[in-house]
Amino acid sequence: MSVTHAQGFIATGLETGLKNSGGKDLALVQNLGPRNAAAVVFTSNRAKANPILWSQQVIADGIVSAIVLNSGGANCYTGSAGFQVTHATAEAVAEKLGVSAGDVLVCSTGLIGEQLPLDKILAGVTAATLDADGGIDASLAIMTTDSKPKRSVVQGDGWSIGGMAKGAGMLAPALATMLVVLTTDADLPSSVLDAALRSATRVTFDRLDSDGCMSTNDQVSLLASGASGVVPDLSEFTEAVTAICRDLALQLQADAEGSSHDIAIETINAHSEDDAVEVGRAVARNNLFKAAVFGNDPNWGRVLAAVGTTQAAFDPYAIDVSINAVRVCISGEPGESRDLVDLTPRAVSVLIDLKAGERRATIWTNDLTHDYVHENSAYSS
Amino acid sequence: MSVTHAQGFIATGLETGLKNSGGKDLALVQNLGPRNAAAVVFTSNRAKANPILWSQQVIADGIVSAIVLNSGGANCYTGSAGFQVTHATAEAVAEKLGVSAGDVLVCSTGLIGEQLPLDKILAGVTAATLDADGGIDASLAIMTTDSKPKRSVVQGDGWSIGGMAKGAGMLAPALATMLVVLTTDADLPSSVLDAALRSATRVTFDRLDSDGCMSTNDQVSLLASGASGVVPDLSEFTEAVTAICRDLALQLQADAEGSSHDIAIETINAHSEDDAVEVGRAVARNNLFKAAVFGNDPNWGRVLAAVGTTQAAFDPYAIDVSINAVRVCISGEPGESRDLVDLTPRAVSVLIDLKAGERRATIWTNDLTHDYVHENSAYSS
Repeated sequence: MSVTHAQGFIATGLETGLKNSGGKDLALVQNLGPRNAAAVVFTSNRAKANPILWSQQVIADGIVSAIVLNSGGANCYTGSAGFQVTHATAEAVAEKLGVSAGDVLVCSTGLIGEQLPLDKILAGVTAATLDADGGIDASLAIMTTDSKPKRSVVQGDGWSIGGMAKGAGMLAPALATMLVVLTTDADLPSSVLDAALRSATRVTFDRLDSDGCMSTNDQVSLLASGASGVVPDLSEFTEAVTAICRDLALQLQADAEGSSHDIAIETINAHSEDDAVEVGRAVARNNLFKAAVFGNDPNWGRVLAAVGTTQAAFDPYAIDVSINAVRVCISGEPGESRDLVDLTPRAVSVLIDLKAGERRATIWTNDLTHDYVHENSAYSS
Repeated sequence: MSVTHAQGFIATGLETGLKNSGGKDLALVQNLGPRNAAAVVFTSNRAKANPILWSQQVIADGIVSAIVLNSGGANCYTGSAGFQVTHATAEAVAEKLGVSAGDVLVCSTGLIGEQLPLDKILAGVTAATLDADGGIDASLAIMTTDSKPKRSVVQGDGWSIGGMAKGAGMLAPALATMLVVLTTDADLPSSVLDAALRSATRVTFDRLDSDGCMSTNDQVSLLASGASGVVPDLSEFTEAVTAICRDLALQLQADAEGSSHDIAIETINAHSEDDAVEVGRAVARNNLFKAAVFGNDPNWGRVLAAVGTTQAAFDPYAIDVSINAVRVCISGEPGESRDLVDLTPRAVSVLIDLKAGERRATIWTNDLTHDYVHENSAYSS
């Protein structure tokens, strides 16, 4: 049921003609309250799309009444005319829903450098009908190259969180185009939502690194209606937000453009969590390793060559590497035979033992395939 | 004529059975003097192959009598047994040529994590016959996935530099498996050779970033015989070394695995040269941009999305971007039509104007193609 699972939210998704391929392309979600608290995490790319610039202003006071999202265009590097499109979209949604434009978040996804047709968006907003069953349509309207919609629900004690996500390529460093909307009927202020959301994204979306490319449009929004009247314990709530973010992140990984393997790179016994993340990310971004996995080749030398480019604390000749539980490298020398590794299943586990401490982290990535190259050379996004 | 063009050098290349595919796989180059000066630049990867560990000791005193190079195996992550293979190879070459093993550089290239068959190498060294015409065979023996050998000559006034190179994938940050041997009959001490070589590689091999992957085995060696008796001016010599390095680097780019475009990314009006390099490298490593070029799609939004991930000084909304001389982005807004850009030729020029200073740098890279994925998923290297 996606973003309309929690009490106090209505939504819709409709087709307005923004996508050449046709299909739903505009989603609206309204928070009916009684509370209108929110928190948002944005892309860390310095090249920010117009809806990011707009939404950063909206979230400043922690109050959000609605969010409007479009596929079919990123509205990035479109200048002041593009910012005006975002502004006018928020104004139209505000008028439609009887709220303030300053409380309307905007998200866009699609090709950079092309103006969005404002007339089509305005006509869509006018025609929209939001209701408590609209979560499914909303999740369909934000898809670009996604082969399927991503939705999730986590149930608390008397409260819940629902969510939707889109994203297939450009999944990287700090959220990447990944658009995510989470809704909850828990009764929490924006400061608590912000703390929970940042804690959750740090170990979920931030650790999904499909292709190393950071988007200009990423936005993860968490809206709270307070409609359940329940104030959950902070750690319990954070755990729930983390769980739904992890579920959506893994759905994004499973649907990454052209991928044929989901790779979990777990770095253990690191001196620090940052070291573990740096090592995992270096391997996740190594095209040679990713191409080898596509070819079902357990080429552990490429893992070590990637690890060697990092500044993490470790002795390069003490490392162990296991692929799908076969310890192919022991203390920097050949271990069990690489012939024992079966890479035909979609799920791949890479375990890197740095032997330098007690911290750990997992990075999720995908392989580099013919289909990835095909989709990203043939599809302008 | 490669490494035997300059006076005072003999060489050979022969087949010893190291490569499953067959063909020449062992190269030897001897410096006959009267001088035996040398300088070497190594990979900055912390995961260093055994021949790198060995050669770092050899070059410590600046004296090199010979260099032996093998394809068919990287001898990396092969433990103390692997180091022993490198040591024994140097000893055999020393005995064969009547020099000291401590003056014999060793280079290896091929798959990581497999032991080299020492008996085949020793038999090859014993059978080798070096002569002044051996430069061609030597350049053939160091090839792996290279489709053609790379050789170059630069003529000075009474002296010259010749060279050979190999490398097709893993061309990145600070030299990457790129093996290069340069020979000169100029009469210069190792300290001067070292200064000239570091100056040259900084702006040539270090700016070639084919696929962002750094090798464990890179080594660029410059050997001087002094046989011409000429002591060239330092700036003239540095210029010549830079010229031959640039020529060989561009030959490597042109033969990069599976590539269909050679992309030169020139960043101008940067606050510093480091900023220009950082920006160019970020674009060079963006898989989405590289795949777009493969598809002849002038997707300048992906250029800006990559630039936005850097720490360089610039205003993201003031940048100009030109692709093949069409200014598709002007001051962060759409400029000339992307339809004017013709990406069918192999050579692609990307010009990024940061408008933040007066420095510039060029990074050379390739596109991301089906053939790249195929070669690196099907070929264990």
